[in-house]
Amino acid sequence: MSKDRVEEFQETRKRLNDIVMEYAQLETKRFFSLDSQVYRAGALSSKMKELMGLVGSMVLRCDDCITYHITRCFEEGVSSEELEEALSISLIIGGSIVIPHLRRAFETWDELMKKKVYRV
Amino acid sequence: MSKDRVEEFQETRKRLNDIVMEYAQLETKRFFSLDSQVYRAGALSSKMKELMGLVGSMVLRCDDCITYHITRCFEEGVSSEELEEALSISLIIGGSIVIPHLRRAFETWDELMKKKVYRV
Amino acid sequence: MSKDRVEEFQETRKRLNDIVMEYAQLETKRFFSLDSQVYRAGALSSKMKELMGLVGSMVLRCDDCITYHITRCFEEGVSSEELEEALSISLIIGGSIVIPHLRRAFETWDELMKKKVYRV
Amino acid sequence: MSKDRVEEFQETRKRLNDIVMEYAQLETKRFFSLDSQVYRAGALSSKMKELMGLVGSMVLRCDDCITYHITRCFEEGVSSEELEEALSISLIIGGSIVIPHLRRAFETWDELMKKKVYRV
Amino acid sequence: MSKDRVEEFQETRKRLNDIVMEYAQLETKRFFSLDSQVYRAGALSSKMKELMGLVGSMVLRCDDCITYHITRCFEEGVSSEELEEALSISLIIGGSIVIPHLRRAFETWDELMKKKVYRV
Amino acid sequence: MSKDRVEEFQETRKRLNDIVMEYAQLETKRFFSLDSQVYRAGALSSKMKELMGLVGSMVLRCDDCITYHITRCFEEGVSSEELEEALSISLIIGGSIVIPHLRRAFETWDELMKKKVYRV
Repeated sequence: MSKDRVEEFQETRKRLNDIVMEYAQLETKRFFSLDSQVYRAGALSSKMKELMGLVGSMVLRCDDCITYHITRCFEEGVSSEELEEALSISLIIGGSIVIPHLRRAFETWDELMKKKVYRV
Repeated sequence: MSKDRVEEFQETRKRLNDIVMEYAQLETKRFFSLDSQVYRAGALSSKMKELMGLVGSMVLRCDDCITYHITRCFEEGVSSEELEEALSISLIIGGSIVIPHLRRAFETWDELMKKKVYRV
Repeated sequence: MSKDRVEEFQETRKRLNDIVMEYAQLETKRFFSLDSQVYRAGALSSKMKELMGLVGSMVLRCDDCITYHITRCFEEGVSSEELEEALSISLIIGGSIVIPHLRRAFETWDELMKKKVYRV
Repeated sequence: MSKDRVEEFQETRKRLNDIVMEYAQLETKRFFSLDSQVYRAGALSSKMKELMGLVGSMVLRCDDCITYHITRCFEEGVSSEELEEALSISLIIGGSIVIPHLRRAFETWDELMKKKVYRV
Repeated sequence: MSKDRVEEFQETRKRLNDIVMEYAQLETKRFFSLDSQVYRAGALSSKMKELMGLVGSMVLRCDDCITYHITRCFEEGVSSEELEEALSISLIIGGSIVIPHLRRAFETWDELMKKKVYRV
Repeated sequence: MSKDRVEEFQETRKRLNDIVMEYAQLETKRFFSLDSQVYRAGALSSKMKELMGLVGSMVLRCDDCITYHITRCFEEGVSSEELEEALSISLIIGGSIVIPHLRRAFETWDELMKKKVYRV
């Protein structure tokens, strides 16, 4: 079976993170670390935090960030209905300029949902 | 007792919404209506949706939107810990450029928390 | 009669432009000049260009730029219906984050419309 | 003759819109509908509204939105001179950060102009 | 002598930072700390880093961030010519939407320059 | 030896600039000219101006602009440590939304550094 979009995204991400870490000094490394810590469960669950990360990524229109949070939402057991509601909030906040990212967000989600069905 | 920042914000918002509605045609009115509907409880609770609205407003750096969602979070019973976690996600996503809005967000929250204590 | 919002905006703008020009070197001055030239009538009328400037300012959410283009639209004889349509396009493109600026845009327009009635 | 950039864009857009509509609930569907209605002729012509949509897309730097509005401008009979003036307003408003999108906008326009010549 | 704009900015900033720190948990505090560290002299001087912080703040159009970096540039001994060149780069990158912030940036700089003359 | 990312970027950029210049009228051409002038050595060196252009491009998240300024920084003799510090300032200002661009920035830099080693 050929690699899908999500797998390709994750490989590129890993390869480029390795290059970043070759050059990165202390502040960059600390920021990367903070970027993980902030999504850990606390007063809010990891699931809700990932959905918030998704909304932030959607309205700022960053495809890589969206793919990452969509994948994490999938891992945290977000349902299609919950995802759709978070995406529709993003759409209303960010406007039609968000639509191209909404399309790709659902494409990624659809790919993950089909993979899940095949694997069960 | 003099009017506080939140009360002033709400009065100005109401006054200007009245002017908008004098000029608004169908599409503008429909969008305002959609903007309310999208935060109603569904698969996700209103409380979580307001926190998502807050994250979207923080990373897009819109003070009026932040004040509105902070007030709604307060009404939905969000705790200070939950609010702080949503704001720290916004800070990490949006960077130091978000800090001036973070300051004013906590100022609004602090005002609401003190009012709550006085009124109980 | 006390000064209104539009008059205050124009005075501040003039006062600060004078400070800019004290420090500005060639590139800054040339950019200011280009910024005037681009709205002059050509294949498109000045009126349409000002409405386009308004849409650009709305979706980028710059209140000063919005006030400036609203005033120019008024001078170019834009009607309330034409203005509302340009603003509703801006709202749909830019989303709810644009609403606070939409409110202030209509406030400025309303002030200009009332002044017009009084002066006729 | 191989598929050109515009045809590929339209096919991908259609395929992804179908995925969106599989998951979309009422608010998302209503927003998509509003996004069509707002460009219909009213006090302003469709042609002027599409040029405004183009300016909004350029300054917000959304390539898919730009390609869409460039295609619609072409269908509405916009001339190369009119298009260039709308794009130069976008460039002055949005700055050099807009240049990569300006390049791709003219590439799309040039493709449409050549197709037109071949087909006549 | 009455308080000037820069002094008022610094007092408000301090007062609000105190509120932030009342609510802030570990991640927010660590980010604030990173935000100081990154401007310390290293391979690049503090002076050049503050000018870079100013360019970043200008193109993202954050008035509070601009006032802060202008003040720091002043403390690091930046000349009016150096400041003007950094601001003109910001203007060309960010476009006319940056102009209102350019005006206020020069207003702050002018205030600092006059204060310097009076105090010598 | 096959073409690398930087060479492909430069060819596409040249090809599309030629299309822009076919359609461009006076204002667009003048802006392109200003965009070169502003990075010329003055009170600040070209090297520092290119690093400022890089920071502006990073926080506005424009990959083409980033690739261009990274290449220019390389030509101006910027060291890996200097580049890393400018990028870490961009990361702290712009937040995690900047990370995908940081990855591609270091990928481009790494390609340039390896080419340099091979050619010496």
